[in-house]
Amino acid sequence: MSDRDTRHKQSMQKLKAHVDEKVAAATEQRGLLLVFTGNGKGKTTAAWGTVTRALGYGYRVGVIQFIKGQWECGERERLVEDPNLEVAIMGTGFTWETQNREADTAACREVWAEAERMLADPDVYLVVLDEITYMLKFGYLDIDTVRRAIENRPAEQSVIVTGRNAHRELLEMADTVTEMQEVRHAFNAGVQARRGIDY
Amino acid sequence: MSDRDTRHKQSMQKLKAHVDEKVAAATEQRGLLLVFTGNGKGKTTAAWGTVTRALGYGYRVGVIQFIKGQWECGERERLVEDPNLEVAIMGTGFTWETQNREADTAACREVWAEAERMLADPDVYLVVLDEITYMLKFGYLDIDTVRRAIENRPAEQSVIVTGRNAHRELLEMADTVTEMQEVRHAFNAGVQARRGIDY
Repeated sequence: MSDRDTRHKQSMQKLKAHVDEKVAAATEQRGLLLVFTGNGKGKTTAAWGTVTRALGYGYRVGVIQFIKGQWECGERERLVEDPNLEVAIMGTGFTWETQNREADTAACREVWAEAERMLADPDVYLVVLDEITYMLKFGYLDIDTVRRAIENRPAEQSVIVTGRNAHRELLEMADTVTEMQEVRHAFNAGVQARRGIDY
Repeated sequence: MSDRDTRHKQSMQKLKAHVDEKVAAATEQRGLLLVFTGNGKGKTTAAWGTVTRALGYGYRVGVIQFIKGQWECGERERLVEDPNLEVAIMGTGFTWETQNREADTAACREVWAEAERMLADPDVYLVVLDEITYMLKFGYLDIDTVRRAIENRPAEQSVIVTGRNAHRELLEMADTVTEMQEVRHAFNAGVQARRGIDY
């Protein structure tokens, strides 16, 4: 075996020991609260990736979209025929399009009722609260209501929260938090959002 | 209209003007190179979310997984029946499990040949090079080869690169770069990776 190969083997053995140790230390089993926040691309996309994953195992999944895009949405089309997936979408467009706080608050509360139902249902393995952070920021929902519903959910249920500027209390409650930071975005260089990639 | 409602409306009008301006400024249409890097959870998951999205529109997608997990993989199960999806997986496990540089290099080159074929095929709308950053880091692939294949791809094709410590040259070429930063990870608090959520 060459020197380089030997060094590689030793370095990989160290890495393996480290990985094995961490796996052995992780013994708790329960539903998780994950937060995907930050200003970068990938928050909602990672949530949909997880939805696809959970559906792949045959689990029931509920998705609440608190900001309905004006665009179509490829992943919804792809998955919507799955009987284990339930999607509820807030009945207005972007809040900066409607510019009507009262109507938006009412629409938000209506779809939140669906979220509460899913968060209380032990048969739902994963609930995605997509872009809910904006609802808290704009005051359409209050953090106590949201925190309580998440805290009291069934022990085996996981929840994903997405959106910029996640509320401090959500970050503190979360098991896993990823901050998706924008290093560069094509859009800012004048490149159009791309069908099937960006939306 | 209450003062609060009026202020909300004004603030949303400003936001709308800003969004509209950015949308109008983005005029270029072409395939994108996206990099999901950083040490946080969500890189591969966001890539799979995008795969689901592209498949939702009926586009052809190629995925190369450069590190085959020892775990199952729900999203692959869910999508594998789609005739528009082609997945190629490196024929060894984690490189820290095999600890054999020569065998891993050979396995990597073999699956890279599949990647090169996809990157040259104008019918493939999206190519995902999942965890390829490690192949560059371990020296199983060289950056010039990878850069050239990505640069010479069909103009309408998008590419997603995932993995920690993305090579500087990949970052410079990319249209969109998101750094997924780990703020907290359940695993480090002793919580087991969860089926259908983490893998």
